[in-house]
Amino acid sequence: MSFSLSDLPLREDLVGEEPYGAPQLDVPVVLNVNENPYPPSPLIRQDMAAAVVRAAGGLNRYPDREALGLRTDLAAYLGHGLTADHIWAANGSNEVMSHLLTAFGGPGRSVLTFTPTYSMYPEYARNTFTGYVTEPRNPDFTLTAELVLDAVRRHEPTIVLITTPNNPTGTSVGLEVFEAVLEGTEAIVVADEAYQEFSARPSALELLADHPRLVVSRTMSKAFALAGGRVGYLAAHPAIVDACRIVRLPYHLSAQTQAVARVALAHADELLAQVRSLAAEARSFEAWAREHGYDVVDSEANFTLIGRFPDRHRVWQDLLDRGILIRETGPDGFLRVSAGTPQEMNLLKHALEDLDPTREGSRP
Amino acid sequence: MSFSLSDLPLREDLVGEEPYGAPQLDVPVVLNVNENPYPPSPLIRQDMAAAVVRAAGGLNRYPDREALGLRTDLAAYLGHGLTADHIWAANGSNEVMSHLLTAFGGPGRSVLTFTPTYSMYPEYARNTFTGYVTEPRNPDFTLTAELVLDAVRRHEPTIVLITTPNNPTGTSVGLEVFEAVLEGTEAIVVADEAYQEFSARPSALELLADHPRLVVSRTMSKAFALAGGRVGYLAAHPAIVDACRIVRLPYHLSAQTQAVARVALAHADELLAQVRSLAAEARSFEAWAREHGYDVVDSEANFTLIGRFPDRHRVWQDLLDRGILIRETGPDGFLRVSAGTPQEMNLLKHALEDLDPTREGSRP
Repeated sequence: MSFSLSDLPLREDLVGEEPYGAPQLDVPVVLNVNENPYPPSPLIRQDMAAAVVRAAGGLNRYPDREALGLRTDLAAYLGHGLTADHIWAANGSNEVMSHLLTAFGGPGRSVLTFTPTYSMYPEYARNTFTGYVTEPRNPDFTLTAELVLDAVRRHEPTIVLITTPNNPTGTSVGLEVFEAVLEGTEAIVVADEAYQEFSARPSALELLADHPRLVVSRTMSKAFALAGGRVGYLAAHPAIVDACRIVRLPYHLSAQTQAVARVALAHADELLAQVRSLAAEARSFEAWAREHGYDVVDSEANFTLIGRFPDRHRVWQDLLDRGILIRETGPDGFLRVSAGTPQEMNLLKHALEDLDPTREGSRP
Repeated sequence: MSFSLSDLPLREDLVGEEPYGAPQLDVPVVLNVNENPYPPSPLIRQDMAAAVVRAAGGLNRYPDREALGLRTDLAAYLGHGLTADHIWAANGSNEVMSHLLTAFGGPGRSVLTFTPTYSMYPEYARNTFTGYVTEPRNPDFTLTAELVLDAVRRHEPTIVLITTPNNPTGTSVGLEVFEAVLEGTEAIVVADEAYQEFSARPSALELLADHPRLVVSRTMSKAFALAGGRVGYLAAHPAIVDACRIVRLPYHLSAQTQAVARVALAHADELLAQVRSLAAEARSFEAWAREHGYDVVDSEANFTLIGRFPDRHRVWQDLLDRGILIRETGPDGFLRVSAGTPQEMNLLKHALEDLDPTREGSRP
């Protein structure tokens, strides 16, 4: 019997959609999804195993639905006088963001953000039936309060989503912009700081005490080298946490995930030292790329947009043929490169030097 | 500054809602959420630790987005000629069910189910903006195809959700009912078999090969004693799995969760032996309760509804005062008791005998 998705009552707006995701390819140099290239050290791995043995002793029972231990540790890590009441955590920041959109979005409401930006945002909106409205950033990918507030006036979103440092451009948004935006709207304003630890600029956490409609979103995927562990979180006024608690499905965070994340937090010093070296690696690659004539976007994150390539797909493929996977994303003519180890970055530089400039058009 | 949830643009239909969940109380005898009372054995815990150490070596990278190893193991466990293509897994069956409702529900559509039934279903519907329509079961909590199809004709749902064994009643639905329902509707028909391993009746898995609109939902929380691990899954035609893949957020299953679940599956023999003893414990408690004059609903699961109590809340509280937590749920006058260890069930029986019948009205 022939039977396919078209024989099922799939939501009309999902027809023809494909599952989201960058290619997961097994190649020597993986610089495509802004992962931290350093696996947990043997000590951290042993601590994780010990924590899982302890947690496994109660795996037959449901986990702590409030994840209070983890939220307490996250609050301590963030500082700024925050407590567990200000923290919400879930399986990756994509689940955190889905909780926010489920609570404050939905049919007839919209989330506003500024392009180019993170390619997963439209998925959150689609899954929660929230309108997804965008406005372009300035030509240098920065944002001003005027640009944001003008868009707010025209679109009347319930959620304004500002990514800083922005993905895929790496550009930061100053706290003065957030302050002016918060003064000028009744909407929830989310600062998505997934890459904040790589930046030298102050965090929007500094504004939380005075701005109860501000949400600062973070992830353990990058700074804590825990992409596989799937832990995202936010800091906000406890009323916003309460809204997330209403819409979360109970027991959303497994006992082993709570345990593994707490071990990583206990080793924050070791992991944040890697963050500083990765930020330095990204800045060093950018200097190299500028010296070699590439257009380089000013980044505060662990990744860099370089261009402009007349045929970026060909460059992406040629690098892949050399065992180096980067990301074909961002504005026309640009490619995104995640900061890897010094060895990986050297391989990338040699491969870029090795590309045929006449064929690739990779040099100005 | 005073600020609360009422100052935020919460969705109108969420105003006044509370986070869902049974009390998580630290008492000696916990028989309230149908958990398996047996923690993983020391051998299983050590295997889990070893698996997490291995997985932790790659925790800096995103996990396998398709969870292919886990889905392959789940297919092998279920048998019936199923392969990974027929399986979808997520963080608990509540996330699996949310994927189904996001794909096949949404505004203007509805899911139909039969009460009394699992109290979390309305949350899935609410979060996905799917209409939630119910019809009462027969007085003995059974279902017939006529009852279901009559309700289908009147409500025209895109999803029909039938729980077998049903929670909180424990009653099973025969395969002939599923067959007739599947013949009589174009809707997706979900057999929620969260407690199927405790039942001696055949599984709806037997019908999958001939019925591509059938979904069989399962969980590792109960039979695999993995409530803390948060792994639910479904078996269905690959087209249904494809629909779930479209709406899932990428990397929804962490590396440690995939690892822990695969260890539990590798020890299925040991865990399923406990399932048989728990089912026997539940049946034995039911016989005792009948002998002692209680109304007892015929159950095929690891829990039992007993009644009728003129004031069930007082009985629930009196048991809690004795260190025994059961669940105040189900039809008026009934309380739900999960099967515990023989020691726990003896404590419960003694406590029930000890209740003051004149005060409690606990005896017929």
